[in-house]
Amino acid sequence: MSKENQTKTGMSRRKFLVSVGSLALGAVGVSALAGCTQTEKPSAKTAGDAATVTYPWPYKKLDVETVRKKGHQGYYEGACCYGVFNAIISELGKEVGAPYTTFPTQMFKYGEGGVAGWSTLCGAVNGAAAAICLVAGDAWEDLVNELMAWYENNPFPSDISNQYAREKAFLVKEMKSDKTLPQSVAKSTLCHVSVTEWCKKSGYKSFSKERSERCGRLTGDVAAFTVDMLNRHFDKAFTPVAKISNEVQSCRSCHDKGGTIENTRGKMNCMPCHDDPHKKPKS
Amino acid sequence: MSKENQTKTGMSRRKFLVSVGSLALGAVGVSALAGCTQTEKPSAKTAGDAATVTYPWPYKKLDVETVRKKGHQGYYEGACCYGVFNAIISELGKEVGAPYTTFPTQMFKYGEGGVAGWSTLCGAVNGAAAAICLVAGDAWEDLVNELMAWYENNPFPSDISNQYAREKAFLVKEMKSDKTLPQSVAKSTLCHVSVTEWCKKSGYKSFSKERSERCGRLTGDVAAFTVDMLNRHFDKAFTPVAKISNEVQSCRSCHDKGGTIENTRGKMNCMPCHDDPHKKPKS
Repeated sequence: MSKENQTKTGMSRRKFLVSVGSLALGAVGVSALAGCTQTEKPSAKTAGDAATVTYPWPYKKLDVETVRKKGHQGYYEGACCYGVFNAIISELGKEVGAPYTTFPTQMFKYGEGGVAGWSTLCGAVNGAAAAICLVAGDAWEDLVNELMAWYENNPFPSDISNQYAREKAFLVKEMKSDKTLPQSVAKSTLCHVSVTEWCKKSGYKSFSKERSERCGRLTGDVAAFTVDMLNRHFDKAFTPVAKISNEVQSCRSCHDKGGTIENTRGKMNCMPCHDDPHKKPKS
Repeated sequence: MSKENQTKTGMSRRKFLVSVGSLALGAVGVSALAGCTQTEKPSAKTAGDAATVTYPWPYKKLDVETVRKKGHQGYYEGACCYGVFNAIISELGKEVGAPYTTFPTQMFKYGEGGVAGWSTLCGAVNGAAAAICLVAGDAWEDLVNELMAWYENNPFPSDISNQYAREKAFLVKEMKSDKTLPQSVAKSTLCHVSVTEWCKKSGYKSFSKERSERCGRLTGDVAAFTVDMLNRHFDKAFTPVAKISNEVQSCRSCHDKGGTIENTRGKMNCMPCHDDPHKKPKS
């Protein structure tokens, strides 16, 4: 990662701390503003077919900005989950060849709108985690933890996605708005909370063309973050910094493993549903 | 579906209505108690490699109980999401052959515990939805809606999964408990809520071996329901009955598409987080 990007990482972390109040977050949100330099080139455009390539599948560094744009485009083809997954896998298809070129990426359409519009897990995160696990093998958990923590605390859509749309240097034919869209911190990896927070912050309705376009830019941003992280991981330059916030840790000290109550599990931000940790949950 | 199973379906529906109070649910939970009869046999044990088989991938009817057992076993190999996905795909590998035999099912380990233990979307549901979308093409949304509604309202673990464990007729080497485990209705497709409801109902702790075994049996149950539904779909005998409950519909009438507020989206049960629809959400 360049020095410029390291500085931006530090800025993002400070921004997170302001955005989420007292949460002491270690999660770093960084979408590299410059595309990565491809230092590794595959020797051939195929790693073999799916029958001969063993899990995890081979990874080659990808260009972060190409994937961001492709993720945004993919949102208009098959929504958020497909958008992220297809952007990464189809670019790996160009760099590595088979077996990526034969992966039925359409199967990830199901993740749309938090799975068929149920608004559970954000589809962009779901598709990104699947792509990570396909290539990272045993390292998937650290990388997915990082992704989840970053998503909860990163302002979406990113400045660069807003900039692309404004400058029209990058055109998605179906793009529903070329405005600079307001940013909000999702506070959660759940589609329901992520969309609501953005609607509250922006004043736009949840089925407005602007909200849809916000999710398209977010799809690009999640794809870009994922690839930046994978590039660093395969360069042995990734150090996980995500950690559970003090507030969530406090909840977990009683309710999670080893706590006196031990009646639940999880690492997600408790606050959007349980704003007072000493008040009995509503359900 | 046999007459016996239709009766059991009716019983399950009544049980749901009691369990979830005033929710007027159309979602039907039925895991066929008898394995389906395989009326279709593939003519050859390969449909072709991934390069030649187009999306959606070809489906052959599977034995529901074989998949239930394999899902349970798979939980102890790679947790809930992998457990469901691998059970279905590996059985399709036996019936259809390639390209299923070359699918890197390990990539679905990421869904464990609601994605890397974050307790968002139940991994069993995530893996099931992915398998559905791989084989069902454009029909995926109706089938996934049915799955989601069923999961929210079905008592887990099923009687049959409890029976297997009790009788030891089906042995999972790593099985952490052979007790008949208490059942609870998840009320949500979120791992966090699903686990908490079971802990409240059963009195077991969230990291107890019994809770882990409950999720193993649930993994089998979700795999079995999915295959039963896919079998019926490909037999042209599936009619979607899932509908959004009156209570959720009431919330959506203001907050979802076309409502006066229109500040969110979703189909999931609102009650576990917002028990009073006229009270401002906590966050």
